[in-house]
Amino acid sequence: MLQILFYIAITAEAMTAALAAGRRKMDWFGVCLLACVTALGGGTMRDTFLDHYPLYWVGNPYVLLLVCGAALFTIIIARVMDRLRWAFLALDALGLVVFTIVGCNVAMEINAHPLIVIVSGMVTGIVGGILRDVLCNDVPLVFRSELYATVSIVTGAIYYFGAMTDINRDILIIIAVAIGFPLRMVALWRKWEMPKFVYDKDL
Amino acid sequence: MLQILFYIAITAEAMTAALAAGRRKMDWFGVCLLACVTALGGGTMRDTFLDHYPLYWVGNPYVLLLVCGAALFTIIIARVMDRLRWAFLALDALGLVVFTIVGCNVAMEINAHPLIVIVSGMVTGIVGGILRDVLCNDVPLVFRSELYATVSIVTGAIYYFGAMTDINRDILIIIAVAIGFPLRMVALWRKWEMPKFVYDKDL
Amino acid sequence: MLQILFYIAITAEAMTAALAAGRRKMDWFGVCLLACVTALGGGTMRDTFLDHYPLYWVGNPYVLLLVCGAALFTIIIARVMDRLRWAFLALDALGLVVFTIVGCNVAMEINAHPLIVIVSGMVTGIVGGILRDVLCNDVPLVFRSELYATVSIVTGAIYYFGAMTDINRDILIIIAVAIGFPLRMVALWRKWEMPKFVYDKDL
Repeated sequence: MLQILFYIAITAEAMTAALAAGRRKMDWFGVCLLACVTALGGGTMRDTFLDHYPLYWVGNPYVLLLVCGAALFTIIIARVMDRLRWAFLALDALGLVVFTIVGCNVAMEINAHPLIVIVSGMVTGIVGGILRDVLCNDVPLVFRSELYATVSIVTGAIYYFGAMTDINRDILIIIAVAIGFPLRMVALWRKWEMPKFVYDKDL
Repeated sequence: MLQILFYIAITAEAMTAALAAGRRKMDWFGVCLLACVTALGGGTMRDTFLDHYPLYWVGNPYVLLLVCGAALFTIIIARVMDRLRWAFLALDALGLVVFTIVGCNVAMEINAHPLIVIVSGMVTGIVGGILRDVLCNDVPLVFRSELYATVSIVTGAIYYFGAMTDINRDILIIIAVAIGFPLRMVALWRKWEMPKFVYDKDL
Repeated sequence: MLQILFYIAITAEAMTAALAAGRRKMDWFGVCLLACVTALGGGTMRDTFLDHYPLYWVGNPYVLLLVCGAALFTIIIARVMDRLRWAFLALDALGLVVFTIVGCNVAMEINAHPLIVIVSGMVTGIVGGILRDVLCNDVPLVFRSELYATVSIVTGAIYYFGAMTDINRDILIIIAVAIGFPLRMVALWRKWEMPKFVYDKDL
């Protein structure tokens, strides 16, 4: 089940990246490259941190074709994209939660410290979007937007502590998604934000 | 022969980076650092992705001196640089093609999947320039410019499929360079570009 | 002793990052994340380059809590921060020197080439600040500011050549700090800078 959710999540991330590329007037190649960095960058950084080789996409190179295909498909359907806004944000939220669970799994397999399990989930969930924003020359949205990283941390914590118990793994995944996903959607809808730190003096 | 071409390519990349640094009014140290990141960043990222250690420059540290030397030499000859514009673009195109071949070689040595061989060549060829542009706070040129990445993919594909046959390796390198290099130069000259994806709605 | 200096340095780096985050109006999570990247990014990149696993913070995850704690504490005391300007710059300079020594140590333990020892110290000392500036969408300060990287190189060279002799390691650390730290402070005070390379033609 996680496998299916994972491919949906990768596709959703690739599509958000393609739209970001379009806003920067990139060419088709740039669209594909930005999609790959966004969809696979989080997992790549996690695996580099944990020395977990081969990287997912090196072992399963066809995922590169899936990502590029999703990105190019987005170019075709861009015209109707704004009418799909909420479907799209929902897919992106699902992607965040699923990537987090996948990242926690990888760290738990190598018996990492609980803090590292949470960080591993968070890196997998949010780094792709950070790289996308850096390559588009923006201050990453995740540093300022609605509970994005918080959702990842909450989901990771639920998943980690759930896995301590003897709950069936598939049921645990459903529980984690059923909490993390609506949390993100409600945060988007109600514009919940973390308090901001504003400092305007030069050092 | 690849070795000689490789040093020429590294030198050319270091010099383009030095000029980019000069446009940002960096100090001499910044010039050297940006040159190292540009000339060695692609290979470093490829080796990190493929878990291929030690990194090239860690095993051959004198290449760092070559890169810094080329960068500082560029400061001296900057005055005549604009008269050398085409010689310079030609060296940069040669660098792209040679880096691609080197990157494919590394992946083929560890028997990677054909898709990964192409990606390995492309990462080696284009990532240095992307890092240079990010550090200079630009949207990377490769996402928008004339067939840069496409040349890398074409060169990599020729090299990979050529290596399947029993063509002599040096002759194969000459063939790959003889196709990839003019392709890039003609693309620059005729301003060939990939179609662009323009999307101007907010998500 | 190096251990104590190291924790002071990490705390100082986390605090500079928190102030940078405040200038970009990031939320509390963004403040913590930027602090982690700044304080631990240099060491992480060094360990990735040298294939030195597990990463420091993966093996000692409580350092993540220290960094986040220092960052959040900075939010509380931000009001008095500008009166502490010089204390703060001093801590940052100490951090640079100590990170450099730690980075040299790691490379010396694996018997790296002298050039790589110096580079390892420099990467550990300056990469955190570069990543902080890239994520804040600035051209990294280190490419232009007062002898930052030069101090790291000088400190690394002293430490490396000192370790060739039979000087006691703790005394050597004191010597390296006693030269590198005042060098940075005097450079700040007298506004010493490297010569700049200014090039204003398009390629």
